[in-house]
Amino acid sequence: MATTTAGPATTAAFITPPALLKHWQGHRRLTRRMIEAFPDDKLFTFSVGGMRPFGELAMEMVGMAEPTVRGVITEKWDQYSAAKATTKAELLRQWDESTKQIDQFFPQIPAEHFKDTVTAFGQYTMPVNELLLYIIDNEIHHRGQGYVYLRALGIEPPPFYVRD
Amino acid sequence: MATTTAGPATTAAFITPPALLKHWQGHRRLTRRMIEAFPDDKLFTFSVGGMRPFGELAMEMVGMAEPTVRGVITEKWDQYSAAKATTKAELLRQWDESTKQIDQFFPQIPAEHFKDTVTAFGQYTMPVNELLLYIIDNEIHHRGQGYVYLRALGIEPPPFYVRD
Repeated sequence: MATTTAGPATTAAFITPPALLKHWQGHRRLTRRMIEAFPDDKLFTFSVGGMRPFGELAMEMVGMAEPTVRGVITEKWDQYSAAKATTKAELLRQWDESTKQIDQFFPQIPAEHFKDTVTAFGQYTMPVNELLLYIIDNEIHHRGQGYVYLRALGIEPPPFYVRD
Repeated sequence: MATTTAGPATTAAFITPPALLKHWQGHRRLTRRMIEAFPDDKLFTFSVGGMRPFGELAMEMVGMAEPTVRGVITEKWDQYSAAKATTKAELLRQWDESTKQIDQFFPQIPAEHFKDTVTAFGQYTMPVNELLLYIIDNEIHHRGQGYVYLRALGIEPPPFYVRD
């Protein structure tokens, strides 16, 4: 993946694994606040332009995040499936459970494994770091979509830059 | 920033600088396709929920991306200012110019500098890697917003996972 073939640049860190985990969990705290910001009766029903409601997008995130980290360390992959929740409280409970498991599993990934290519969920073949970035990027992407839904509902979304 | 204080994990790479640049430029290709996907007469005018039109969001991205990478290597920071374009063609021209300059400047950042704390644009103080991730994340966030605008206009957005 690196564009150089030798020398320090190929082994130096843009970011270390612990710092990346911290960065991701910051994003997850913001996404959790987004789930909370939706009115209960809109979370699984409201959308714009025929897209999926935010609750459905969040269930996709839950179905991808912890199962990917677990798959990377166990090398056992189930078929991908979205989480199933029908209330905000249940979705938040699953979100928080994922958060704990990610904190437990992520540090178990050996540092040298992030550049290795794996096949996630039996179908997505790419390096471990690209796979994890894809999941984080997908969360940011769909959360950005959720910001529009909240604005369209007349609700001020939580600030993008607050991650604590 | 790392959550461990010693040992290999603090110096190992989740991702190397060249791989991160490649990842970012993949995102930038997708964002460029998003700009192209907007009809000329909607790019700077259409939005949902009172938010900024996509052209304005893209001008923010142009104002942040290359100036940040340049500031990191020169340690000279101007005040932040958004790009100024009034047509899609002009915006794309500025986008492509930024892309070339990022490819030129990013590899000049010394590998050991990514963890150092800087103050960007005279006001944003954080480690270089967090600063660059913030800019990439902000691009993904606002692009996700743009996906809703396109759908609301009845236009199919480019696929999220295609980055070539």
